[in-house]
Amino acid sequence: MNIALLGFGTVCKGVYEILKEMPEYNIKRILIRNPDKKYMDSMTLSFDDIENDHTIDLVVEAIGGLHPAKEYILASLKAKKHVVTANKAVVAKYFDEFISVAKENNVKFMVEATSGGGIPWIKNLQRVSRIDDVSSLYGIMNGTSNYILSAMTNENKDFDDVLKIAQELGYAESDPSADIDGDDIRNKCAISASIAFKSLVCVDNINQFGIRNITKADINWFQNQNLVCKLFANAIKENNCYDAVVEPVLLNKNTIEANVSQNYNITHLFGKTIGEIKLFGQGAGGLPTGNAIVQDIIDIKENQAFDISLNKTLSKANIISGKYYIRTSSIDSKIIPNNIIEYKDETHSNTIIITKEILSSDIHKIIHQNPDKKFFIARFI
Amino acid sequence: MNIALLGFGTVCKGVYEILKEMPEYNIKRILIRNPDKKYMDSMTLSFDDIENDHTIDLVVEAIGGLHPAKEYILASLKAKKHVVTANKAVVAKYFDEFISVAKENNVKFMVEATSGGGIPWIKNLQRVSRIDDVSSLYGIMNGTSNYILSAMTNENKDFDDVLKIAQELGYAESDPSADIDGDDIRNKCAISASIAFKSLVCVDNINQFGIRNITKADINWFQNQNLVCKLFANAIKENNCYDAVVEPVLLNKNTIEANVSQNYNITHLFGKTIGEIKLFGQGAGGLPTGNAIVQDIIDIKENQAFDISLNKTLSKANIISGKYYIRTSSIDSKIIPNNIIEYKDETHSNTIIITKEILSSDIHKIIHQNPDKKFFIARFI
Repeated sequence: MNIALLGFGTVCKGVYEILKEMPEYNIKRILIRNPDKKYMDSMTLSFDDIENDHTIDLVVEAIGGLHPAKEYILASLKAKKHVVTANKAVVAKYFDEFISVAKENNVKFMVEATSGGGIPWIKNLQRVSRIDDVSSLYGIMNGTSNYILSAMTNENKDFDDVLKIAQELGYAESDPSADIDGDDIRNKCAISASIAFKSLVCVDNINQFGIRNITKADINWFQNQNLVCKLFANAIKENNCYDAVVEPVLLNKNTIEANVSQNYNITHLFGKTIGEIKLFGQGAGGLPTGNAIVQDIIDIKENQAFDISLNKTLSKANIISGKYYIRTSSIDSKIIPNNIIEYKDETHSNTIIITKEILSSDIHKIIHQNPDKKFFIARFI
Repeated sequence: MNIALLGFGTVCKGVYEILKEMPEYNIKRILIRNPDKKYMDSMTLSFDDIENDHTIDLVVEAIGGLHPAKEYILASLKAKKHVVTANKAVVAKYFDEFISVAKENNVKFMVEATSGGGIPWIKNLQRVSRIDDVSSLYGIMNGTSNYILSAMTNENKDFDDVLKIAQELGYAESDPSADIDGDDIRNKCAISASIAFKSLVCVDNINQFGIRNITKADINWFQNQNLVCKLFANAIKENNCYDAVVEPVLLNKNTIEANVSQNYNITHLFGKTIGEIKLFGQGAGGLPTGNAIVQDIIDIKENQAFDISLNKTLSKANIISGKYYIRTSSIDSKIIPNNIIEYKDETHSNTIIITKEILSSDIHKIIHQNPDKKFFIARFI
């Protein structure tokens, strides 16, 4: 099987390392951007060399971003090449278009590496769906934010100090916003929920709140209550509706998820006959993510690849609810109405509020109205 | 696809419940033993009705035990019927024979339901093995013993009291020895290690020590050290050798495995490029185990089933080692030599010893020589 790699960063280097041990797969072309980095004959600066090469059966896309990734994916599919991608942003945005173009051209479009890194999450979601309707999923699906939360909890450090260490270790980008504000995990949530529910879950329908505002004082408050804070993706299906959200949650310290530390990921699904399934592993990194891509490649070659179906049409509804922790300097009752407050502690410089059980969507309305831009919320689960 | 069920206990009833929603699968025959329980036309008392029915494509075996399960499996394979089994005892004992007879007859022999209940453990082991050599695995793979250890830890109860509750809840058999002495998990360890290492791991080569002797005092000692005790299956490969053992282990309370409670299972594997993978779920029960069987059935029908290969020949070696907790009334230095002792506490009615790092095989020699039949050991990990 002849393969082209689009990009030669961490992930494609991982694919290259793995495939060089597997002689039945030939990396024929590698698309790079910088002519100074062309040190192998297979490297090219021109996507045309890949699109027009009819001997290339499969294209791995890991250049990231929306453009030209979208155009390369569509052109590859239209040229009857299978596409395996690790690019969660472009999949979350154009998932249904990619699937329909792949179907029209009788090739596969595979996304294991977009969500959960090396964890075989997408494949197992699909396998479970052969028997059960998956009615809910959640997980720690961003390694950077989990590293930061773990280090703040275990080493009693402030957010900014931990972020700096994470950047030095290469766990966080110089612009960390995609990880800490939840964009990255929101894309994974949209992709996972779409596959689980067999219906397009639009990323714009997923409320998000990240961990940028969490403080040492928040963590200390949680620890005093035997709670651990994690950033969760969460999606749920009820009848013909779905709900999905990305937000911090508070877990009892004796739960499995509370003990997933460092930059590891864990995902969870629930199906009627299988019950609970959790999958733990490396959520990022060249070899684990490369491994996920190679699993997709082998599945295609061995005729083991599943088609992704988004044929159902679920409506977005407000279903996810819980009690929330709110720490804020602003307690305007027009923004946080008194009737949702179960407990209020004003002894600290900031007010800490525990709400009654309310819809997640209502909390996210409050988030957008709150003039305090340093406040933090987390849902008790 | 026409299917026969051998047995109609918890697991086959689970299969029946799931398949009745899937019209492409037809349960044509059900073998039962008791003529008084024959309430469906498809039920038969005679295996001949299944063996000689050439329209039956696949046989599900869940009668348990070695005989006549072995004979039914072999006869079914020789009659060119695929076999899907949940019977860990018969597979652990005759694994290579079943695989070679299946191969000779060009049918599949599938064992997902033998190990880890509803957890998709075997399939994921096989998928990981397509890329990585799996070099180690471990796990909590017996729900009954995990329920007992969890309840003793969380409720500060004695072994016998918890066992009685487990029996009342249906989590433990009236003769609980297979679960609490480790026979059940040892079979799962042999099957898992054989598949992971692609070499027959003989169940007789796996030392075992169960949880029958654990006391409230042991648990209290562990809790004071922030440790949690779990019964582990563990297998490791190094070069052309393997080692495998079933024994209690002591985990820091902040580990994932320490927080797997009730009758849940968790399995772990390590591969070079994928790194660590853990899979959590229901390790038993009619619907989860039935689900595992139906996954095997679908894989066969959809041509997605993997062949199990035991072509490698690894030798048994003594590799697994650690520091051990030993609680015993007998401290004869001929049995527990002084040079393996790192710490000794004789202030209790029993002596508690922490050993230096020693081979697991050496501890199991001590186990067999120790005249105190109420003693307990556990390995620190």
